[in-house]
Amino acid sequence: MAKELTSRNVDYSQWYNDLVIKADLAENSAVRGCMVIKPYGYSIWEKMQASLDKMFKDTGHSNAYFPLFIPKSFFSKEASHVEGFAKECAVVTHYRLKNDPNGKGIIVDPDAKLEEELIVRPTSETIIWNTYKGWIQSYRDLPILVNQWANVVRWEMRTRLFLRTAEFLWQEGHTAHATSNEAIEETNKMINVYADFAENFMALPVIKGRKTANERFAGALDTLCIEGLMQDGKALQCGTSHFLGQNFAKAFDVKYTNKEGALDYVWATSWGVSTRLIGALIMAHSDDNGLVLPPKLAPIHVVIVPIYKTDEESSKVSEKAVEIKKALEAKGITVKFDNRDTHKPGWKFAEYELKGVPVRIAIGPKDLANNTVEIARRDTLEKKLCPVEQVATEVEFLLADIQSNLYNKALKFRTESTRTVDNYDDFKKLLNENGGFISAHWDGTSETEEKIKEETKATIRCIPFDQKVEDGKCIYSGKPSKGRVLFAKAY
Amino acid sequence: MAKELTSRNVDYSQWYNDLVIKADLAENSAVRGCMVIKPYGYSIWEKMQASLDKMFKDTGHSNAYFPLFIPKSFFSKEASHVEGFAKECAVVTHYRLKNDPNGKGIIVDPDAKLEEELIVRPTSETIIWNTYKGWIQSYRDLPILVNQWANVVRWEMRTRLFLRTAEFLWQEGHTAHATSNEAIEETNKMINVYADFAENFMALPVIKGRKTANERFAGALDTLCIEGLMQDGKALQCGTSHFLGQNFAKAFDVKYTNKEGALDYVWATSWGVSTRLIGALIMAHSDDNGLVLPPKLAPIHVVIVPIYKTDEESSKVSEKAVEIKKALEAKGITVKFDNRDTHKPGWKFAEYELKGVPVRIAIGPKDLANNTVEIARRDTLEKKLCPVEQVATEVEFLLADIQSNLYNKALKFRTESTRTVDNYDDFKKLLNENGGFISAHWDGTSETEEKIKEETKATIRCIPFDQKVEDGKCIYSGKPSKGRVLFAKAY
Repeated sequence: MAKELTSRNVDYSQWYNDLVIKADLAENSAVRGCMVIKPYGYSIWEKMQASLDKMFKDTGHSNAYFPLFIPKSFFSKEASHVEGFAKECAVVTHYRLKNDPNGKGIIVDPDAKLEEELIVRPTSETIIWNTYKGWIQSYRDLPILVNQWANVVRWEMRTRLFLRTAEFLWQEGHTAHATSNEAIEETNKMINVYADFAENFMALPVIKGRKTANERFAGALDTLCIEGLMQDGKALQCGTSHFLGQNFAKAFDVKYTNKEGALDYVWATSWGVSTRLIGALIMAHSDDNGLVLPPKLAPIHVVIVPIYKTDEESSKVSEKAVEIKKALEAKGITVKFDNRDTHKPGWKFAEYELKGVPVRIAIGPKDLANNTVEIARRDTLEKKLCPVEQVATEVEFLLADIQSNLYNKALKFRTESTRTVDNYDDFKKLLNENGGFISAHWDGTSETEEKIKEETKATIRCIPFDQKVEDGKCIYSGKPSKGRVLFAKAY
Repeated sequence: MAKELTSRNVDYSQWYNDLVIKADLAENSAVRGCMVIKPYGYSIWEKMQASLDKMFKDTGHSNAYFPLFIPKSFFSKEASHVEGFAKECAVVTHYRLKNDPNGKGIIVDPDAKLEEELIVRPTSETIIWNTYKGWIQSYRDLPILVNQWANVVRWEMRTRLFLRTAEFLWQEGHTAHATSNEAIEETNKMINVYADFAENFMALPVIKGRKTANERFAGALDTLCIEGLMQDGKALQCGTSHFLGQNFAKAFDVKYTNKEGALDYVWATSWGVSTRLIGALIMAHSDDNGLVLPPKLAPIHVVIVPIYKTDEESSKVSEKAVEIKKALEAKGITVKFDNRDTHKPGWKFAEYELKGVPVRIAIGPKDLANNTVEIARRDTLEKKLCPVEQVATEVEFLLADIQSNLYNKALKFRTESTRTVDNYDDFKKLLNENGGFISAHWDGTSETEEKIKEETKATIRCIPFDQKVEDGKCIYSGKPSKGRVLFAKAY
């Protein structure tokens, strides 16, 4: 097969890169760190967007659009935000090009220098809160529940397709509330929306928890997250929801008159997920044959591959295939009938395995004679014969079964890969030999957290919401701890 | 009423600005020339996107995503493209900020200068054709039918919300074909898709035609367009579709092996519409009371306003309102029941008129007694009583009727505003006194076209597809002409 992948056991990282390229998901562009998302990869993003967008709207949010550019001075207004975001970013300094007077192509016109430089948004809290200032006067203007689908740029030095790129696509929710409680409730609500999406659409079990102070969003009082576990035992942060307190309201002077007539600063949240989720989806389920996609996010649910030798066989097989396609489409199933005569069935089988199409139906002359088709499921690679009149019911069942099988498999893997340790030697040994999540006691200080990270590359992924109160000793410092946190190496 | 608009007769331009702001569609941002699209305005864009996206997919296109940034040198590769696009644009020169050593906020790090400047895309032909080079080897890889939904930046000096902004949202289709004929067919197909969308969704009749050489897209061999007429008699270009020949394939060396085994350059098209269409929508139909939206693009089809004095009345009216809402929603109609007790019915009536909600239903105690509701249509402002059991049918009829009424009204206006003239004096008089489209003979030279533009501000909007072959004399030069073209002042 022309498109063979590096096996996961040999080199997981190379397997991932191979798969992204060979399944036509994305590729590197001519611009350092920026990717091209190819049609097949983008169609997965469209499925993710559609599902998430509905969930956001069902929870009362509307979409809006704010400028790509942010005046440089805006970043200085929120003290901790500037530290986190006003560093590696794309800076627009000029607004015009002109012909080189020496005839060598085009040059930046030195006369067209901006008075104040503009930053290509790495995240939009500052420009949005500067805008909200004009929208909010009274408690009657609150809450504001707005989301934006947009591109953002962070000048990452080491990039990987989907996982870490200079430009990426995401959504960022930015809400404004009259009370602290309401904002905290929103922060919680949205991390639950993300967990729901990860588990029920991506078939990816996630741990919900709270970031340590070290790992918090720059400008947040509290950062909630969902963390998934990839097949190589590394964690991947899949989404975050931030309680921003009154930090941005204070930075941009956004006050409202409450019901009692008093002025107060507005309370804020922000939350986001990005095209990184496509990376998570790939690494959670796929295998050495290629992508494995959960049906709820698969651009194509079923591919029908005809098998024939003569033109007469071809036309009879096609007739049956079209009939089956219609029956499946009537149930809302997306079907591709690949009747190209430029490729052999074997090539097509491999191609759709590589692309993770959940169900494949093959029909040949023998099937016609027996009134059956061959149905193969992508997750287990099992094949079976199915009577034609039962195909629609069978495929409907299979799609639901594949969706839950992927989730259960990932959950089993995560359960087996989550271990409890009580001393630093075991911690280091486990981390190197098995990876996965390690549940351990920590003394609560940033110093210890940083030491462990320096020495082992493991970070505290989160303090799980379901953390048990349990007296223990920090695996590093031996100081007292009230509960375990979750460590892992992470993407 | 607090939100009174300037009347169209007094100052059309001010009326437009007032309306965009007061109907909560968009506003200027802190970044010069960039707009904030507010939730209500954005929801119109979402309706447009959904309809167009379906039309693109139904005609075989897929979405993809290409980088925001384009290396400066790419613009020099296509000779006429650079003239048109590499001028007023945002230039990224640095990739890092740092703390000012003098303690004054943050500054651009002079050590982080890019080797080659990056341009924020004003349009994506160059980066896309540089990418297609890797995708195309043989005729089997063709056609490529790709569309991108994206933001683009053109550093306009004089901006107006939706109509002309430095950053705007759009879609850009970029297709690659094996033959010239196939690319020309695609160019035609997409201008027809745009015309279909304008007429059947926006309720805006458009003239389909071809741009003169002067008005062509920079790098195109042929630019097709749809032109709409606004209520002030000015034209607005609503969409363009370009036949790019082999210009970009040559610039980026994109060749394919044809069926005979010979190498040839690939043929290209590109086509786009933008958030400018929201401007067109507003100016085509709205009135001195506010927005008038065609039902197919209205975010809310029906608003229900309850009228009551006592709590008991309120609860009875609400019960009936919810019942009606459900009946309407069962027919796929989007309904808002505005039961806020913070605003009076009169305020709500004015508010939803301002926002262009096509149908308003008012229910009060008297209606309950008579088992009727009051239904008002936004386009004609007519009101009538309707028995409760007929509401769903009546509203369904009204929505269709409003959609076609808006189209017919706009068509009547355009027909009355399209005039034929045969000499330059009449041309100038008509242009100043009536505006509208003027059908006149032209000698076919760019010189004449430019002179007329200089002297009158009128441009040739297009050479209509339905141009009649007709001998005549150019209104400006008196030279022979074979047919009339369409002039107008334009946005």
